[in-house]
Amino acid sequence: MLTRIDHIGIACHDLDATVEFYRATYGFEVFHTEVNEEQGVREAMLKINDTSDGGSSYLQLLQPIREDSAVGKWMAKNGEGVHHIAFGTADVDADSEAIRDKGVRVLYEEPRRGSMGSRITFLHPKDCHGVLTELVTSAPVESDEH
Amino acid sequence: MLTRIDHIGIACHDLDATVEFYRATYGFEVFHTEVNEEQGVREAMLKINDTSDGGSSYLQLLQPIREDSAVGKWMAKNGEGVHHIAFGTADVDADSEAIRDKGVRVLYEEPRRGSMGSRITFLHPKDCHGVLTELVTSAPVESDEH
Repeated sequence: MLTRIDHIGIACHDLDATVEFYRATYGFEVFHTEVNEEQGVREAMLKINDTSDGGSSYLQLLQPIREDSAVGKWMAKNGEGVHHIAFGTADVDADSEAIRDKGVRVLYEEPRRGSMGSRITFLHPKDCHGVLTELVTSAPVESDEH
Repeated sequence: MLTRIDHIGIACHDLDATVEFYRATYGFEVFHTEVNEEQGVREAMLKINDTSDGGSSYLQLLQPIREDSAVGKWMAKNGEGVHHIAFGTADVDADSEAIRDKGVRVLYEEPRRGSMGSRITFLHPKDCHGVLTELVTSAPVESDEH
């Protein structure tokens, strides 16, 4: 069961400049940064609020580290902007299987590693009215700052 | 001060079909529907979670009712997908003025009427790394179902 907006994934050309834009304009601070080699991105998570299911909602700023990464190819076509949205669930395995059974294409056979040790999968945007949609089960999270 | 992800605005060709996709696939229910003549859209708000600032996060599904509406023109170029993101604040007037003073273009001189009696404004996507960004101060909200 999907219980929160976990994050909005935003593709950018320059992660440091984009982080600085969000800090200077809105006061949003970096909660965590990492490089995900498998996804081919550098990323920064900005925590915006906590949610009623015990989780949090983030902006996830993504800079491709390879032109042939999924985000790199998307940016070559679309430029900077919202790349995907993600819903949080306590059980990404069960939810992704249930959604697959409804005929929506799930892009990974099994969930893979996402931000901050989470487990994630993606749904095909053509089956979701144009929205690349991620499902995520968080690991217990701790900010870089703590 | 922006204290939550208020909603993700998603443009669609057929509001009823898209509402049904979100209900059948994820179990998300319609919290509120309305027509905003000024914005030129029919819309449905799906409440996903409550937030730590006392507000809520929604998906906002938007179907243009005029081809020359902002959403209609955007869809003619981009098709269905994420149209904008919105941050919630207790004081859209003060925050939009502070952001304007930082050199970000604010699209309305004064905030206008948004979903469920809220007051909203938009920031120019070219000043926000490609993301059309809305600021919203909610009115006290009550679901259509209550």
